[in-house]
Amino acid sequence: MADLCDVLGIERPVLLAPMAKIAGGVLSAAVSDAGGLGVLGGGYGGTEWLDEQTQLAGDSRVGIGLITWNMSATAVADALAYQPPALWLSFGDPAPHIPLIHEAGAVAICQVASVGEALAAIDAGADVIVAQGSESGGHGRSGRSLFGLLPAIRAAAPSIPLVAAGGIGDAAGFDAARALGADGVALGTALYATHEAQDAEAAKQRLVTATGDDTVRCTLYDKVRGPEWPEGYDGRCVKTELTDEWAGREHELTSNTLEPMVARHTQAASDADMSVRVLWAGEGLDAITAIRPAAEIVERFTR
Amino acid sequence: MADLCDVLGIERPVLLAPMAKIAGGVLSAAVSDAGGLGVLGGGYGGTEWLDEQTQLAGDSRVGIGLITWNMSATAVADALAYQPPALWLSFGDPAPHIPLIHEAGAVAICQVASVGEALAAIDAGADVIVAQGSESGGHGRSGRSLFGLLPAIRAAAPSIPLVAAGGIGDAAGFDAARALGADGVALGTALYATHEAQDAEAAKQRLVTATGDDTVRCTLYDKVRGPEWPEGYDGRCVKTELTDEWAGREHELTSNTLEPMVARHTQAASDADMSVRVLWAGEGLDAITAIRPAAEIVERFTR
Repeated sequence: MADLCDVLGIERPVLLAPMAKIAGGVLSAAVSDAGGLGVLGGGYGGTEWLDEQTQLAGDSRVGIGLITWNMSATAVADALAYQPPALWLSFGDPAPHIPLIHEAGAVAICQVASVGEALAAIDAGADVIVAQGSESGGHGRSGRSLFGLLPAIRAAAPSIPLVAAGGIGDAAGFDAARALGADGVALGTALYATHEAQDAEAAKQRLVTATGDDTVRCTLYDKVRGPEWPEGYDGRCVKTELTDEWAGREHELTSNTLEPMVARHTQAASDADMSVRVLWAGEGLDAITAIRPAAEIVERFTR
Repeated sequence: MADLCDVLGIERPVLLAPMAKIAGGVLSAAVSDAGGLGVLGGGYGGTEWLDEQTQLAGDSRVGIGLITWNMSATAVADALAYQPPALWLSFGDPAPHIPLIHEAGAVAICQVASVGEALAAIDAGADVIVAQGSESGGHGRSGRSLFGLLPAIRAAAPSIPLVAAGGIGDAAGFDAARALGADGVALGTALYATHEAQDAEAAKQRLVTATGDDTVRCTLYDKVRGPEWPEGYDGRCVKTELTDEWAGREHELTSNTLEPMVARHTQAASDADMSVRVLWAGEGLDAITAIRPAAEIVERFTR
């Protein structure tokens, strides 16, 4: 089996999930400097955001993550111009982009949510597979969880470097992922709750007070905040006054009910009012008890 | 920590999930005789079904499982009259029933789907907690998966005997569950795919050919087949022609679309036509490659 750390050129098998806008240059650099792989969350950002964040990352060796269905025609080439060690593609067919990634000498990390997606990505040349379970925070698919997904991918592709993503809260979670066939972990929520993550302090504090029982998968915030995602995707977030009323009932929304909610959310985002504002987070929240330095999280997961 | 095997009086920490009607006397006896705990799936059955199945279980020591929201006023007393070593309550508040279980000298096994439910059950006197993740087949809640749920319950209740349920396909899954804090596993789908389970051969063969990618959580079959479950529950089943069209769109069903589907499902159930008939199954399907004797499954999971 090709070793995940060798393929990525890292010391510790911990990857920063490229949380859009949250995983900026400072957080990415901190993760890479601690021995893992920092990955910029460029999915919603465009080149201006990447310019800023690569500057903030300085000399640290950080990858770039993109949202495949949301990319501009030049997004992959634009990202590769920064000469990242790895490009991470999520949420869409990576096949058309992998040759370009390899030509640039970068590692192609492909995030999948099923065995079928994993095999298609490997067939297209993926170097590393990230298996995202429905435990995870933020966008994804509701279908599969890590307990079944990891061993099924491992059985179907015994030699692929395999990373577990979703709801992994501590080193015991890493042990469990390894028992199921993973070589490493991708951390989103666990690295969101750090000093280096890019968000309001109130948002980070809500990660400390909320638990896994307090999260829900829904499409509500894609309607309230945008952008609308393709069919088949939803996202896990901390429950709010809005999800309490509307999660699972999004089909009942009309412009009469939606428009005031959009205004209310815009205000809440401006005020960092976490009783209303979206906060993407996974089920691993139970393990988050304080905001910590990112390096401490990377070390804690690899003991 | 009280040892799960001691509390239940068993040799191997493997429990048969009380799949309604599927987990009959023959399967329950086979699991118990192999050193685990067989549990009759009495949730839809009533006393007539329990009479038959306890007869079939013969002298083997088997528990009884009930669906709390669906019980008659005398269901717990009726079940305890068979002097089971354990009564397993799922899907509802177990608190009113635990004193009766203890008076009868039986162990109270309480199935939960969140940390909140676990703590409430423990507070009410539960002897064993079964943490059911959304990976599992059949009814449950979509909210939480085992990766986050197990360590969170373990952290909140360090000494409770804790059983992991949902999508656990093989011994590696058991290792992972243990890493996350579980003392044992409850097997549903893995023991459904056995000679002793009560269902048509075509249903069992579909468990062999289907994979975890082929399952979906929905409420469709509760409308098509009944009974309707309380708000907040759905069920994971193998995808069919009906779920391909309607899963996730159940709110659009009208009597015009539902009635022909009910008739179609009734016919499919009679014919064991698995392209239409409901087949509850969890994400661990990928690990099922043949129909085997139940004893072999129990042994394989505990090596």
